[in-house]
Amino acid sequence: MKPLSILGSTGSIGTNVLRVVEAFPDRFSVVGLAGGRNVERLAEQMARHRPRVVAVADAAALERLARLVDITGVRALSGEAGMVEVATHPDAGMVVGSAVGAVGLVPTYRALEAGKDVALANKEALVMAGELMLSCARRTGARILPIDSEHCALHQCLGGREADEVRRLLLTASGGPFRSRPRETFDRITREEALAHPTWRMGPKITIDSATLMNKGLEVIEARWLFGVPSDRIEVLIHPQSLIHSMVEFVDGTVLAQLSVTDMRVPIQYALSWPERWPGAVPGLDFTCGMRLELEPPDTERFPCLPLAYRALAVGASAPAALNAANEEAVAAFLEGRVPFPAIPETIREVLESGGGAPVSTIEDVVEADGKARELARRVLARRGAARVAS
Amino acid sequence: MKPLSILGSTGSIGTNVLRVVEAFPDRFSVVGLAGGRNVERLAEQMARHRPRVVAVADAAALERLARLVDITGVRALSGEAGMVEVATHPDAGMVVGSAVGAVGLVPTYRALEAGKDVALANKEALVMAGELMLSCARRTGARILPIDSEHCALHQCLGGREADEVRRLLLTASGGPFRSRPRETFDRITREEALAHPTWRMGPKITIDSATLMNKGLEVIEARWLFGVPSDRIEVLIHPQSLIHSMVEFVDGTVLAQLSVTDMRVPIQYALSWPERWPGAVPGLDFTCGMRLELEPPDTERFPCLPLAYRALAVGASAPAALNAANEEAVAAFLEGRVPFPAIPETIREVLESGGGAPVSTIEDVVEADGKARELARRVLARRGAARVAS
Repeated sequence: MKPLSILGSTGSIGTNVLRVVEAFPDRFSVVGLAGGRNVERLAEQMARHRPRVVAVADAAALERLARLVDITGVRALSGEAGMVEVATHPDAGMVVGSAVGAVGLVPTYRALEAGKDVALANKEALVMAGELMLSCARRTGARILPIDSEHCALHQCLGGREADEVRRLLLTASGGPFRSRPRETFDRITREEALAHPTWRMGPKITIDSATLMNKGLEVIEARWLFGVPSDRIEVLIHPQSLIHSMVEFVDGTVLAQLSVTDMRVPIQYALSWPERWPGAVPGLDFTCGMRLELEPPDTERFPCLPLAYRALAVGASAPAALNAANEEAVAAFLEGRVPFPAIPETIREVLESGGGAPVSTIEDVVEADGKARELARRVLARRGAARVAS
Repeated sequence: MKPLSILGSTGSIGTNVLRVVEAFPDRFSVVGLAGGRNVERLAEQMARHRPRVVAVADAAALERLARLVDITGVRALSGEAGMVEVATHPDAGMVVGSAVGAVGLVPTYRALEAGKDVALANKEALVMAGELMLSCARRTGARILPIDSEHCALHQCLGGREADEVRRLLLTASGGPFRSRPRETFDRITREEALAHPTWRMGPKITIDSATLMNKGLEVIEARWLFGVPSDRIEVLIHPQSLIHSMVEFVDGTVLAQLSVTDMRVPIQYALSWPERWPGAVPGLDFTCGMRLELEPPDTERFPCLPLAYRALAVGASAPAALNAANEEAVAAFLEGRVPFPAIPETIREVLESGGGAPVSTIEDVVEADGKARELARRVLARRGAARVAS
């Protein structure tokens, strides 16, 4: 029986985590749940899984939750401090990091600091503070098991082999909805077009990141820290069918690839069951009607977010946190209709060019860098939004 | 420094084994070489690698060898006894089984009996006596490392995981030169057409086996023994590009695939360097111009050798040895122009239907079953050849 604390339990990944938990009632129990503002879903999850501690985004959400569900005997909290308490509860044997964005940074770090194994979908936490996270995990003996389907694939292809046997990590990307859309039409891309992912059903933030290829850029940074492979040995390939989730090329010229249906329960179950593999509820791949798998290099002209991520990784220090902050702000502005699609990479570039890669030696430094980059990004976005209205 | 004995050193695999040995002069030495009748090549190999023991097919070949090269100080032998001495030389740390056909059966078995690790390309040895080979290896602690590219791929995808975590082994096949040739033209297939493999350059016997898909049938049997997975969980997929060399589907719905260029040095080096991976002389896969990978089920109507192999495996006992013997005889007859291409599966079917799956408990039983099936196959082939001349 593995007792879990789940950060971001009401989101797309969190919901799938609980589906896996429900498929194996003898193997998991739920100690803690941290949701955001979707208190209706959290209330349902509480009724079903009886956690000992829950956390929501803020006091207002907590009040709404208390009206929906009897919280007697449950430690019910709010804000980052609440999320940290869920992440570090003494009874939690494993923490599932499925929050979205920078909000997961500190709770994930505290979980590792407390020596908890973390099954991590919240890639932004690693992008912002990968080096700190990994050195903290080494210090406390905590393990990080990736839930991101690409990194889960890499973990499986590596099979425990070390970075010195690796020639290249090959991250695959579907290419998103605009894989073959002409660049000159990018400023007319609508929110709905960007949210229509061709192969995966995911939350809105990661879906926009997939449309800009920033998702793959973030994953390059994530892979660099998770597997200790420098960025010149991490490559991205477009694979429109989304069946190969990533590949590892070893020094002897061999490539191992991981394939499965596009269902997040596959990587979630892998992370939760590792080092074992359990018969899953998810169907296997169907080869009976034939299958075609295509792989090709990405077009970095049309998708400048990808080279921007490589650049932030090369600069190091606070640059990846700034990249992530600018991206989060720009994606939110695009989703709210405040700026056009091409403003996303343009804002990130401007933020990266102004911010100077300040050194980060503590998680507080990262939080500060994140805040500064956000402020700058908001100014850039306001200017771009105003320019748009004017034009 | 790993001292090797190489059975079948002058053939296609043996030559590539020595190319790998030459690429790592500090890691390997050559203790023994067993060739067949190509004494010219063996003489060159002896001059270069200075083995302590050599063996050739028969006394006549030995005489020719002695005229070509100074064999003073070298133990030079012939026949099966000579091959066994090469395979069991006390100084050999690993035996490479790269002979073709049943001729490798007894020497491979004796190597395992002597506790030697065997890097095995000689699939027929496992087809004929898989159960005996594996139980012998378990007894002596010898390891069998597959060189066959498909089984090498499965070994890598498994990464040490046990059969109970496997849902299916998925063996890939190029489909050979007649993948899309209409069945009614099969009786006009020439030797040259059958020897023109679309993706791999290999010896003549395995090339014909690839054209009939019997090669994949033999590999299904081989996989059954090597990995302890029953045949209803071993499937074959046609993959015309020959870049995915096989795949494993695990119980959790995940598939791992191994890819590389079509160069036998990749699996050879893997088997010789395992559990390490060394930087290889072989180039990696080139994704820069895009890559298309296709997978589809095989056409068992046009390629009846594949279901025949499953049937022999289901019958068990001596049936796989009979299947192999009939196939070897039929392929030789086809290569010599004595029978048409469709006579290969027809002869095998007739032999399987007459022979009754006699129990085999020793390697001698296998040799006997092989002999009987060959005799029967020769009679069938003579009749079919005569019928062809008459018609």
